[in-house]
Amino acid sequence: MTEVSDALVTHYSENGITTLTLNQPERRNSLSMAMLEALSEELERVADDPETRVVVLAARGNVFCAGHDLKEIRDQFDSHDFQLGLFNLCSKVMQQIVHLPKPVIARVAGVATAAGCQLVASCDLAVAADTARFATPGVNIGLFCSTPMVALSRNVSRKHAMEMLLTGELVSAPRAEQMGLVNRVVDEQVLDETVYKMARTIAEKSGHTLKIGKSAFYQQLEMPLAEAYEYTSTVMAENLQANDAQEGICAFLEKRKPEWKDS
Amino acid sequence: MTEVSDALVTHYSENGITTLTLNQPERRNSLSMAMLEALSEELERVADDPETRVVVLAARGNVFCAGHDLKEIRDQFDSHDFQLGLFNLCSKVMQQIVHLPKPVIARVAGVATAAGCQLVASCDLAVAADTARFATPGVNIGLFCSTPMVALSRNVSRKHAMEMLLTGELVSAPRAEQMGLVNRVVDEQVLDETVYKMARTIAEKSGHTLKIGKSAFYQQLEMPLAEAYEYTSTVMAENLQANDAQEGICAFLEKRKPEWKDS
Amino acid sequence: MTEVSDALVTHYSENGITTLTLNQPERRNSLSMAMLEALSEELERVADDPETRVVVLAARGNVFCAGHDLKEIRDQFDSHDFQLGLFNLCSKVMQQIVHLPKPVIARVAGVATAAGCQLVASCDLAVAADTARFATPGVNIGLFCSTPMVALSRNVSRKHAMEMLLTGELVSAPRAEQMGLVNRVVDEQVLDETVYKMARTIAEKSGHTLKIGKSAFYQQLEMPLAEAYEYTSTVMAENLQANDAQEGICAFLEKRKPEWKDS
Repeated sequence: MTEVSDALVTHYSENGITTLTLNQPERRNSLSMAMLEALSEELERVADDPETRVVVLAARGNVFCAGHDLKEIRDQFDSHDFQLGLFNLCSKVMQQIVHLPKPVIARVAGVATAAGCQLVASCDLAVAADTARFATPGVNIGLFCSTPMVALSRNVSRKHAMEMLLTGELVSAPRAEQMGLVNRVVDEQVLDETVYKMARTIAEKSGHTLKIGKSAFYQQLEMPLAEAYEYTSTVMAENLQANDAQEGICAFLEKRKPEWKDS
Repeated sequence: MTEVSDALVTHYSENGITTLTLNQPERRNSLSMAMLEALSEELERVADDPETRVVVLAARGNVFCAGHDLKEIRDQFDSHDFQLGLFNLCSKVMQQIVHLPKPVIARVAGVATAAGCQLVASCDLAVAADTARFATPGVNIGLFCSTPMVALSRNVSRKHAMEMLLTGELVSAPRAEQMGLVNRVVDEQVLDETVYKMARTIAEKSGHTLKIGKSAFYQQLEMPLAEAYEYTSTVMAENLQANDAQEGICAFLEKRKPEWKDS
Repeated sequence: MTEVSDALVTHYSENGITTLTLNQPERRNSLSMAMLEALSEELERVADDPETRVVVLAARGNVFCAGHDLKEIRDQFDSHDFQLGLFNLCSKVMQQIVHLPKPVIARVAGVATAAGCQLVASCDLAVAADTARFATPGVNIGLFCSTPMVALSRNVSRKHAMEMLLTGELVSAPRAEQMGLVNRVVDEQVLDETVYKMARTIAEKSGHTLKIGKSAFYQQLEMPLAEAYEYTSTVMAENLQANDAQEGICAFLEKRKPEWKDS
């Protein structure tokens, strides 16, 4: 990872954890069409990669991600098609994270703004350095953060989301933690330690079980209560038919470590 | 209540408050099929019991509830019917709490895990000892907490729910309070005092009004805004036709205590 | 504003910020039919007023708003039509705030109860004095706060909403902030300073952009994820066709202040 790469998104795997790193710090890791395509491809790859059990989404440099590439957008002011294509691709990438059959942890150092903040909100988990900051400042340039707010408003309460969206102001990491946008805030010096400890904890689980659970989580969220229970009861009964569940339960009762097979 | 009972769930009523106590500490109050049936019956009984105005859900021993009975599940690995029946019954019990026409307060001491955590999340209110802890650790044994997450994810933010579900780790009572899973955390020595003070406060209200309000609460939550307002406007106008509302308003204006009749 | 007015709701505009003030402190600013009609009219007016970019909702006296006028309700105990009309009008006013094409900030000093608490919950943002308090105490008079809970339960978590609704007890401003009901709590001496600083920050944005964003925010909240992304992608692409977005982006890239035209 210390090697220089000119890929827009680099990947590095170790012990079942694949780190995807936004790698254009000189452009503030902005989500240009090319960056979104690169990220989309990497997400597709890790979705199918049997070696990847957990994904960490990181960024090189002191800006996590500054949102869309405004120069690129300006050069395409006349092309409604380009713009719609851009926002659709961005929305696709965010949903790829949500639908990825593996947990995704955002590792946030520096500033995450607009679609960059959306990226954090779209991950299953997020750990931030205490110096990290978050904003949806589109309103400052006349372009309301309408797609970012889809993810943001599904992470934090209405008033908090509205405060970020209407004022465009930066929110500190501790306040982001209070709001529920990130799980933990730690000293930047122990950011990696914290992120990878969490990743390793999750990577030890059955991949098959993680896949079932993550998918069911987001699906049941959009259902009324009775339907959610009917659906998840079926999911659990099916989960229980899997080797890993039976192995896990036996291992627990026999007080030994489980050996996963389906993952 | 200090008498020994061999019922799986005991009940004790005083001053309109019925305490249901999970009473199998030697099995960590786990939600076996028999325990779920006992709890379901008790909930049915208190629903119709005119003397019960508020329900407290408690547990004997130092584990509030450890979730399903894994031995029972292991013995039925081959029976998909049993498993589906178990999760359906468990989901029914959780929804009985939600649909119960009387408020339910969880009184949590010790550990509440998996379906035990779901039980806490399903209650209308929850008070926990500062030593209580919460987890959805199914992922550790290959069986994702898919039904527990229905209740959990309707109590806490997505990232918090996902952290509990993906890591399976225990959450302290103070953090559970910050997340919104429990209303209050107190020293274990004043747990009963706090729970029953809250219960008495609520038991003083009109039972008819509590029934109308609790039912409307969960129904309107699942509606779009305009529909929720249309529905609750009707509920309020009907509520106002009841004796208790007219008595309550007159009592308030006449600066006297109301005397409820419908409850 | 220091002039005496006998209007139920006064308005005062300066620098694009219109303050609407509930002006019947001797009746605790209660939402009588007349008060609701006055507020509805004012909201209609500011919706169309080109000079108003941001609305502050305030109240005169030491009670922000005590909810419905119970004397008026008592005098109409026999008229189901009156009551339904009252709750429908109240629901309409709350939704006028939500649908207003301009951000609304609640400025809360004193006590906000029942429909008064709902008013705070319905605003996009809320700033409270540290002495402010909040409650939904309808349950105390036999009339559950069923319409207030529509707004309340869309601001705070279930357990917090249920605690307020079932106990009817007052919640302090700091706890309301923790719950997410208000954005900030400040010393009463700096309440106006804080509110109007926030209002000015927002009033500097493009009004056209605020209108697009606020409307999209509440609409996407009620959609499933995929639909929300499809909808907001279209909103953003259309937003980008507006003068203000193009001006804002150019100004940002040219490191100058934008000059809004559409607002």
